[in-house]
Amino acid sequence: MHAPGDVRVEERDDPTIQEPTDAIIRVSAACICGSDLWPYRGTDAVTEPTPMGHEYVGVVEQIGDEVRNVKVGDFVVGSFFASDNTCEICQAGYQSHCIHRVPMGALGTQAEKLRVPLADGTLVATSTVPTPKQVRGLLAASDVLGTGWFAAVAAHAGPGKTVVVVGDGAVGLLGILAAKQLGADRIIAMSRHADRQALARRFGATDIVEERGEEGVATIKELTGGLGAHSTIEAVGTQESMMQAIRSTRAGGHVGYVGVSHDVELPGLELFFSGVHLHGGPAPVRRFLPELIAAIMNDEIDPGEVFDLTLPLEDAAEGYKAMDERRAVKVLLETE
Amino acid sequence: MHAPGDVRVEERDDPTIQEPTDAIIRVSAACICGSDLWPYRGTDAVTEPTPMGHEYVGVVEQIGDEVRNVKVGDFVVGSFFASDNTCEICQAGYQSHCIHRVPMGALGTQAEKLRVPLADGTLVATSTVPTPKQVRGLLAASDVLGTGWFAAVAAHAGPGKTVVVVGDGAVGLLGILAAKQLGADRIIAMSRHADRQALARRFGATDIVEERGEEGVATIKELTGGLGAHSTIEAVGTQESMMQAIRSTRAGGHVGYVGVSHDVELPGLELFFSGVHLHGGPAPVRRFLPELIAAIMNDEIDPGEVFDLTLPLEDAAEGYKAMDERRAVKVLLETE
Repeated sequence: MHAPGDVRVEERDDPTIQEPTDAIIRVSAACICGSDLWPYRGTDAVTEPTPMGHEYVGVVEQIGDEVRNVKVGDFVVGSFFASDNTCEICQAGYQSHCIHRVPMGALGTQAEKLRVPLADGTLVATSTVPTPKQVRGLLAASDVLGTGWFAAVAAHAGPGKTVVVVGDGAVGLLGILAAKQLGADRIIAMSRHADRQALARRFGATDIVEERGEEGVATIKELTGGLGAHSTIEAVGTQESMMQAIRSTRAGGHVGYVGVSHDVELPGLELFFSGVHLHGGPAPVRRFLPELIAAIMNDEIDPGEVFDLTLPLEDAAEGYKAMDERRAVKVLLETE
Repeated sequence: MHAPGDVRVEERDDPTIQEPTDAIIRVSAACICGSDLWPYRGTDAVTEPTPMGHEYVGVVEQIGDEVRNVKVGDFVVGSFFASDNTCEICQAGYQSHCIHRVPMGALGTQAEKLRVPLADGTLVATSTVPTPKQVRGLLAASDVLGTGWFAAVAAHAGPGKTVVVVGDGAVGLLGILAAKQLGADRIIAMSRHADRQALARRFGATDIVEERGEEGVATIKELTGGLGAHSTIEAVGTQESMMQAIRSTRAGGHVGYVGVSHDVELPGLELFFSGVHLHGGPAPVRRFLPELIAAIMNDEIDPGEVFDLTLPLEDAAEGYKAMDERRAVKVLLETE
């Protein structure tokens, strides 16, 4: 990305092993994230040409001398932070806050080849070669499914629970799938786009609420006996969406928030009296990768459905444009 | 309270049964809460003469026709919200958000007699007559112990955990006692007052940090291998104390906050990247009363130590002054 709205596909040098813990992978597919739109739209500054992308699946081409857990030829999934998976923070399940973490976005996964630091901690290999459909699912696991899953876990979605999902982008939609898999009784999707509503229902939504803000909250209250949801997934990151999530949740309920907060200030007194649990942040996708990969490879879930536009990598600029204009929920970029 | 700084003890009509679910109790002891200082200092407006106090223990004098769980002569403990203890929110353990809750502060427990609404849900009777020392402990359970306990539970204090406590008022000090009882390995009290530090150590603090703000956070990081605490109790309610609590906590850790937030705005992006769990608000003290009463009546804990000034009710004005000037941590008001 050279500037807001200016995405170019250029030749760059092949990455090489720099640390003995690195791996080089041939990227099979990458994709464009909702968070890539923040700089595209100029909300986040772009001060110099920047490699883009942080979601990826691919085949290991080369490994450093100290890499033990993956081998050349493995099909692997990683996520948006490289992590050692051994530090105290990783061991507690917060690999996205690993004390040695490396943001993959700085390396740029929207590319043919990629250097993955801390390969042993970061990459998880599939046991068999995935089908094309499974590749799409695994790519979703790399971020949007893993993030939606974390949000659902942070929101304590599960049996007996009514779950509200604020945000109908890929993460929100896959938060619905996660809540369904985790056994939620009722899943209310807040969405006003017919195509996304349809996908929400396919993923497990039982109710759709089109209203937003105060009206949206009032409708959620009506649907929940005046109490609000037990569990709310916030997958947008604006002031309105955060307040909508908090206000849609009953006292003692849980808000899992994964939209990257932009210009959000939470009013302390209202939060205090809301009595909700609040947890979120950059999702520790690595925690969930083994179970998500298993569910995808067993064809129990098909999160790849979230990709509604597939383009060759060289058409990345068109992919950004389509997502920016909301013509696509999620764009998959194929490298081969 | 007639105005900030103006507390008077006046004759008022005896309360009477208004609803068949009410009880009238003769208050044995009440006390002054840190939150009573907000109006006393003019931070919260006082627009008309207002009965004060929301902490109380006493003996049941009269019950309404529908009261079943307590009887005349019982020694009872309640907390600062009357609650039915049967609604869905109460059953989930959030009685301070009961759909029928009544704030006891509006009735004013700094009095000789008190009407307690929803007596069956609100009051818990002791099985035997408490000793004077136990009365002091039970009064602490009514709010400050119950609130500190909730904060410790919300912060997931327990075995293997390092707990930081921000705030050395009665709630913070009893948060230390709670963390100790819950089995925390290490309890770091943030305090710069020698008398409170001594009480903190008696209640179970293993370390004292005198620095505040950024310096305080840096010291906590040093003491925790650079990571921050697993669990942090926030018991002040200012912007500085909230940020100190959040920044003292490791990613994936838990902040339990019970200081009533005043002019607090939480920056969304920092909260997002902190990766902490945040939970708090008005403590559902009723949830913990049975176990707290048992621990006090068995002399396992002595939370009444937090009262360092005892005055007759008619000297309430002096009690407010002593707490405002920080000459007392917590003032007990005796009615007989």
